Amino acid sequence: MARLSLGLDYGTNSVRALLVDVETGAELATSVFNFPSGDAGILLDRRDPNLARQNPADYVAGFYAAVAEVLKGVNPHDVVGIGVDTTGSSPLPIDAEGTPLAFHPEFKENLAAYCWLWKDHTSHAEAAEITEKARAQGQPYLAKCGGTYSSEWFWSKILHCARVAPEVFAAADSWAECCDWITGYLTGSSDPKTMARSVCAAGHKAMYAEEWGGLPSKQFLSTLDPRLADLRDRLYDKAVTSDQSAGGLSAEVAERTGLKEGTPVAVGAFDAHFGAVASGARPGVLVKIMGTSTCDCMVHPLDEPLADVPGLCGIVRGSVLPGCYGLEAGQSAVGDIFNWFSRFSGRSHEELTDDAEKLKPGEAGLLALDWNNGNRTILVDPLLTGLLVGQTLYTTPAEVYRTLIEATAFGALKIINRLEEYGVAVREVVNCGGIAEKSSLTMQIYADVCNRPMKVSRSSQTCALGSAIFGAVVGGAYGTVEEAQAKMTGVKDRVYEPNPQSAAIYARLFKLYSELHDAFGNTGWTGSLSHVMKDLIDIRDEVRAG
Amino acid sequence: MARLSLGLDYGTNSVRALLVDVETGAELATSVFNFPSGDAGILLDRRDPNLARQNPADYVAGFYAAVAEVLKGVNPHDVVGIGVDTTGSSPLPIDAEGTPLAFHPEFKENLAAYCWLWKDHTSHAEAAEITEKARAQGQPYLAKCGGTYSSEWFWSKILHCARVAPEVFAAADSWAECCDWITGYLTGSSDPKTMARSVCAAGHKAMYAEEWGGLPSKQFLSTLDPRLADLRDRLYDKAVTSDQSAGGLSAEVAERTGLKEGTPVAVGAFDAHFGAVASGARPGVLVKIMGTSTCDCMVHPLDEPLADVPGLCGIVRGSVLPGCYGLEAGQSAVGDIFNWFSRFSGRSHEELTDDAEKLKPGEAGLLALDWNNGNRTILVDPLLTGLLVGQTLYTTPAEVYRTLIEATAFGALKIINRLEEYGVAVREVVNCGGIAEKSSLTMQIYADVCNRPMKVSRSSQTCALGSAIFGAVVGGAYGTVEEAQAKMTGVKDRVYEPNPQSAAIYARLFKLYSELHDAFGNTGWTGSLSHVMKDLIDIRDEVRAG
Repeated sequence: MARLSLGLDYGTNSVRALLVDVETGAELATSVFNFPSGDAGILLDRRDPNLARQNPADYVAGFYAAVAEVLKGVNPHDVVGIGVDTTGSSPLPIDAEGTPLAFHPEFKENLAAYCWLWKDHTSHAEAAEITEKARAQGQPYLAKCGGTYSSEWFWSKILHCARVAPEVFAAADSWAECCDWITGYLTGSSDPKTMARSVCAAGHKAMYAEEWGGLPSKQFLSTLDPRLADLRDRLYDKAVTSDQSAGGLSAEVAERTGLKEGTPVAVGAFDAHFGAVASGARPGVLVKIMGTSTCDCMVHPLDEPLADVPGLCGIVRGSVLPGCYGLEAGQSAVGDIFNWFSRFSGRSHEELTDDAEKLKPGEAGLLALDWNNGNRTILVDPLLTGLLVGQTLYTTPAEVYRTLIEATAFGALKIINRLEEYGVAVREVVNCGGIAEKSSLTMQIYADVCNRPMKVSRSSQTCALGSAIFGAVVGGAYGTVEEAQAKMTGVKDRVYEPNPQSAAIYARLFKLYSELHDAFGNTGWTGSLSHVMKDLIDIRDEVRAG
Repeated sequence: MARLSLGLDYGTNSVRALLVDVETGAELATSVFNFPSGDAGILLDRRDPNLARQNPADYVAGFYAAVAEVLKGVNPHDVVGIGVDTTGSSPLPIDAEGTPLAFHPEFKENLAAYCWLWKDHTSHAEAAEITEKARAQGQPYLAKCGGTYSSEWFWSKILHCARVAPEVFAAADSWAECCDWITGYLTGSSDPKTMARSVCAAGHKAMYAEEWGGLPSKQFLSTLDPRLADLRDRLYDKAVTSDQSAGGLSAEVAERTGLKEGTPVAVGAFDAHFGAVASGARPGVLVKIMGTSTCDCMVHPLDEPLADVPGLCGIVRGSVLPGCYGLEAGQSAVGDIFNWFSRFSGRSHEELTDDAEKLKPGEAGLLALDWNNGNRTILVDPLLTGLLVGQTLYTTPAEVYRTLIEATAFGALKIINRLEEYGVAVREVVNCGGIAEKSSLTMQIYADVCNRPMKVSRSSQTCALGSAIFGAVVGGAYGTVEEAQAKMTGVKDRVYEPNPQSAAIYARLFKLYSELHDAFGNTGWTGSLSHVMKDLIDIRDEVRAG
């Protein structure tokens, strides 16, 4: 009799279910359900390009559809545990029973009542205000989230809601991160008073830490808005790691799926963190989860000293592995930039990749900043945009496509350098996610730009596999996450090694990237940029001359 | 019996013939011959995107083909005069008989033996050297060409040829601007010792001025290369205005065309200068000739004081109207940028224009620099490239297309401002050329950005009409160019008036454009750019909120 674990991975456009053999990590069946609402699952508002919401009804429909599909031909009672990861910070307002306000008929037309998707950037003014007040008051909260609170995060979004949609804010009994609401739904405990709350979500996005007593103080929240201080009482005191159970599967969900009632459901977490676990996260290993955006995860032993790393998204005890600090960095758009440019140029990724592969580093004479969706790590500023320099009358779409890949690689190198500058050694890089898997062009560019080997995780669906790993742990198949990792994870044979010639050219381009980065991103910068176009031309001419 | 004039307009990709009634300016017949050589008439070298050459055989073939077409159904003997304009500076090496070296079998495969097209930028190192040495020696030459000698010009190209293709340089008895070689060919006087030389070409591109005795001194040229000093003896002492005859049509050409032998052929000039004349150039009127690149022409009375305007391409006595200084400014690429982006995005101008017209100024949140082919006026630097900033994940091709049009309009405003700062009042702007004629979107953006009415020349082929005007003058139909202009030129009824709301937004964007212009273009600049992306977002959000 096989022992199985069921992993659920809720993304930006879809949810994936993955059925895994807990002994070997073998992936037995998978299924993807595309969210039917909005534009590929995202509710948009043409008047405000910063707005991005999701419909929680898609989460429920997606769960049943995707799970039914993977359970075909197996005995659902062989499933020993379930794990769930989602995007984040993606909070949604709920009533006292845990029902999303979006399900209330009176809020059906109100986008503020839906789930505020991670990439919603409407709250930048509130993020700036939170940062400013926390700094001015000398609060400890920012030190663990890179010194700047983000518009993508929990409190920014809720404060913005209180201001622009006070009727929604007033009607909400509480708010839940999407990962917590889903585990709450599955275990029949989405009542905000009893719902299990993820330390990954709480610590990285809601300024939660045990050392200052959980969420930020009512005193601090009241300086933002007295209504937030009131809300704190209706949130939570304690958030837990994902090796803990959020509860057993409810009778209703068991009934509808055939799964056993009471099957343990692991406390939820963010997709990238579970992806990191499934890619073999351990001290010294940087895991890059490369999707529409990128999340860079590292862990650091709890008993070793760790500096506050400025510009990092978060340093949270237990957020990736229960026995370590979880460190999260990231880039606000990576695959999203490539997808945008494919649409923009009317050319497929395959066509662009074929042509871009023929180009040598530097020969296009182009350089870009990878900020089409803001900058998450280092600058922590959503109010940044893309930049492309070096265009001639002969610039081709493939040249720009390659340049955009390079720009994201430069952004990745900035993160590695920042970690190492603060004493977190990056001894190995493991990539996972669709881009790592499919684009050898991207992986080679990353190896050349970072001048380090790039490994790729064995699984094509590491986030869902991570969920299944935590499902296996709460289901009792393993005593620790590390034991589960040893059996259930691995990397592919093919390792992308840096090419020394390419690395040398990219080192020169990275200097120029860094200048543009600082010139456009740092308020304190002054300098001269008149050499940039000329240096790009020099590099181009050198490369073309061979 | 009608009296006719024949105008020839040699462009980058084709030659146009135009048959005009000298009494009214009525355009009776026109014909275009596309140059068969290379890529749309341009000989390219993939290894060097700066290289652009033309095949002089195309000039001859094009003359006969286009002229035969327009003479159909008329009596060729009614043609009283012929005018010729060309691109420039487009010099070609010739032998002692005036035959292009490109026609010699031994140079057939050598691109250096062909005509060095205006937009050939291979000679930037030589241009910098000429500027530097002329400055260091306190030579007067640069003051009349904006303070910087261009890689697009005569001596830069010839010096570069001497260095990279010494065998071609050594084989050349002399060099001719394309406009002079063609009038030489038509009049059977392309022998370099007798060929009529255009003051427009000589003054604007070869540092010719009567006040310092013609071409630059042998002493100066020898500091560049002793071979250039030797060449000076085989060039010319005197260049003349286009109201003068270069000679009568040769028997051979008369025979092949049916035109009367001895028909006067006006001294050649550059296309834009003739276009300016045909658009009604007179003191106070800026004529913008909008094609692949843009040429901005003004005239200033010889008897009124005129400062040296830094950054202008040239100030030359008699180059546009015989009785005035001709002032030339320009943008290295305008239509070329739009054409590039149409190819780049795989979308037609019509499609892009339809969508771009629906956008409000500022609402895309984008800003560009119009330097895909360098910067001709103000910075006089070919080693500059394009820049686009403000891209999000939602940026569309139509938004970028509109932004590129706006960028060229900002470049146009820089030129107007520079002229006025130096006391040359711009009281009226007349546009001509394909873009002025066809793109009401472009004209409206120019009106809004410059906050001035934009008029459009009546003729769709002003350069060729200008040639015909000079043909009419040398043919004796008018005593002066001004008399011919009064009868043969005019503007369209539709005038593009600035919209105050749009002008207000563009005034804010122009400030940002100017900062990027200086940051990337001026070696002396230091400052901060971290507000640029944020200001673009602010403007975007304001415009979208209405």
